[in-house]
Amino acid sequence: MALIVQKYGGTSVGDLERIANVARRVAQRKNEGNDMVVVVSAMAGETDRLIDLAKKIAPIPNERELDTIMATGEQVTIGLLAITLEAMGYAAKSYCGWQIPILTDNAYGAARIAEVKADAIKADLSAGRIVIVAGFQGLSADGNVSTLGRGGSDTSAVAVAAALKADACEIFTDVDGVYTTDPNITSKARKIRKIAYEEMLEMAALGAKVLNIRSVEFAMRYGVPLFVRSSFNDNEGTLVTKESEDMEKEIIRAVTSSTKEAKITFTGVQDKPGVASQIFSAMADANVVLDMIIQNSSADGITDITFTIPEADLEKSLVICRGIAEKLGAATVTGSNDIAKVSIVGLGMRSYSGVAAKMFTALAAEGINIEMISTSEIKISCVIRKKYMELAVRVLHDAFELEKAAV
Amino acid sequence: MALIVQKYGGTSVGDLERIANVARRVAQRKNEGNDMVVVVSAMAGETDRLIDLAKKIAPIPNERELDTIMATGEQVTIGLLAITLEAMGYAAKSYCGWQIPILTDNAYGAARIAEVKADAIKADLSAGRIVIVAGFQGLSADGNVSTLGRGGSDTSAVAVAAALKADACEIFTDVDGVYTTDPNITSKARKIRKIAYEEMLEMAALGAKVLNIRSVEFAMRYGVPLFVRSSFNDNEGTLVTKESEDMEKEIIRAVTSSTKEAKITFTGVQDKPGVASQIFSAMADANVVLDMIIQNSSADGITDITFTIPEADLEKSLVICRGIAEKLGAATVTGSNDIAKVSIVGLGMRSYSGVAAKMFTALAAEGINIEMISTSEIKISCVIRKKYMELAVRVLHDAFELEKAAV
Repeated sequence: MALIVQKYGGTSVGDLERIANVARRVAQRKNEGNDMVVVVSAMAGETDRLIDLAKKIAPIPNERELDTIMATGEQVTIGLLAITLEAMGYAAKSYCGWQIPILTDNAYGAARIAEVKADAIKADLSAGRIVIVAGFQGLSADGNVSTLGRGGSDTSAVAVAAALKADACEIFTDVDGVYTTDPNITSKARKIRKIAYEEMLEMAALGAKVLNIRSVEFAMRYGVPLFVRSSFNDNEGTLVTKESEDMEKEIIRAVTSSTKEAKITFTGVQDKPGVASQIFSAMADANVVLDMIIQNSSADGITDITFTIPEADLEKSLVICRGIAEKLGAATVTGSNDIAKVSIVGLGMRSYSGVAAKMFTALAAEGINIEMISTSEIKISCVIRKKYMELAVRVLHDAFELEKAAV
Repeated sequence: MALIVQKYGGTSVGDLERIANVARRVAQRKNEGNDMVVVVSAMAGETDRLIDLAKKIAPIPNERELDTIMATGEQVTIGLLAITLEAMGYAAKSYCGWQIPILTDNAYGAARIAEVKADAIKADLSAGRIVIVAGFQGLSADGNVSTLGRGGSDTSAVAVAAALKADACEIFTDVDGVYTTDPNITSKARKIRKIAYEEMLEMAALGAKVLNIRSVEFAMRYGVPLFVRSSFNDNEGTLVTKESEDMEKEIIRAVTSSTKEAKITFTGVQDKPGVASQIFSAMADANVVLDMIIQNSSADGITDITFTIPEADLEKSLVICRGIAEKLGAATVTGSNDIAKVSIVGLGMRSYSGVAAKMFTALAAEGINIEMISTSEIKISCVIRKKYMELAVRVLHDAFELEKAAV
């Protein structure tokens, strides 16, 4: 007998039939003798409908109030799932975020979980009840409803699993696991059986959509084993866990890609202390998160600076940068969203040399120019022209032979 | 400067335009220097939509879970109204029932308010904020979301007004006050300027839909002056308050009618102790509330018993009664929903004699047979054939000259 936390996303609870399907899956695991906690999202489309309502009133609605509105989506789902399980003869009990409570900070719309009080849930499990928890929401330090941001239900599930010291946290989604790359880009993409937290974290940061990045951070910090599975079939999924001996011995684990970035270039900037800090302080003040930054070394005291930012922030960033360029006497400021970021990720990189060389050679062989490079211990990212993205992914997937599992 | 609690029903907040209209009304009173608390219902149709969803899963959904689902309707409205007021430049803050909290018992679906904790609201009002409260909902003794039953937002508003010792509680609805009778039945119906709690309570019990009966009980118990007004115009409404010298000196205040009852008749029952108790105990066990009860006196030890019940309970009551009739050896049991209850209500009755005689004479003059009669200190009700209902209302409205206000 184990304690299992399952999470079902919006598509998996999109209508009453799908909710009944979820109830049957939960009941089956309960029948096998497990204690069950189920975390659910809002029915697909519901969160967007609620946001649209609020935005018709004000383009930037009061965040505290928007959270109160958005949280109703999950509140409806938990009630419907509990009614379904009760009607099937199971004792079930639903919890809103504030009821547990899942305590968060006051960052409405992107709140961070501070603590999950698990006593009430434990008492229900002891009494044989199936516990249903509203994902995506919590109780803010000020006593209001807060939401965790897009994909927040994954984080709710992992946080609840950590608080309960659950044996496993199963994330049910509309794909049946984590793949070596996006299967929409190459049919050679292969499902990964087991992956380390660190790798999954890099993949989430670099554009893989299957798991919310905060949920992986949380799972890693508390050592919660995460299973990624499909709610529409019984295929074996992917286990995200601590690095271990029995993981496949790949040099790299996966190739990711993203078109969500844009770049800004300053040319003809004086190469002296304080210049970069003026630019980056202004960006920080505007809440723009910088990713890669490149500054060429200069011989004549004049240099260029290029950095990447989220594509959505390009316009407002350009306005800020043009103001700064004038003050700095920079020659030009240009922006472009015609870029893509292609990355390779893998713990194996640490013990193999020549991984970067292999990546650059493979791209060069197809005539793909690399505009920017950034590396960490377990990933290498290249910024290239957007039109080459899919080609680059296929080339790298082939070069590192990801279509077949290593022994 | 006064402290005013306003309540807007589902029709008044039915879409974003109407919510904006409510916001303007609230803002106007705030601008006049008043402290404002606004209680709102779910957008028209939303509660029914949510109930339908739950009932598609189970004909009788788990009540605790159904309340969690239903309460989201008001939760969306409070957020939308707060966002609207914020966008207009006012400081506003919304509260769900559990946040205030409005403490109730555990009778999910028909919970009774035990206490309203007013500290948080008072602090907001002191800080100049407009406070918005979700009607219809509270926090149960067990810490769950509870709802108060249909029309519960009226009760929420009165309870909040009582807890805050508000100067007035204004109930905005889709009619502009309380009328001497249903204006759909006679165009002579006249809006009442001022009415006593006791009269309004009888009217609500006897079929007048304008105010929820519990809200009137609450207002009477705590002496909250209730104004009934339309949210679609600025007409003066009706004040429901303590009986006072300046109320119009009518013998009766209003005529009400209802077709929501049915009657059951036992014939040929032995007239001995314990017979009635067997019938009425069985009805109580089935949660059927009896209204009028008539037992004829008997000469030969055999009698008839007739009683009225809610029309919705007729079928299940007949099944129960037939079982009892067999045990009692009663001759027949018959049921009928071809009845209507017509009532006259007024504090003036206490000091005028001949009111009942005048009522019965007026009905007799039109050939309307009275099947059952029940009276209290301030009302007389007659059960008649359903087809005579409108005629009876018009006859009584004329007989007591309700179309003109007394001096």
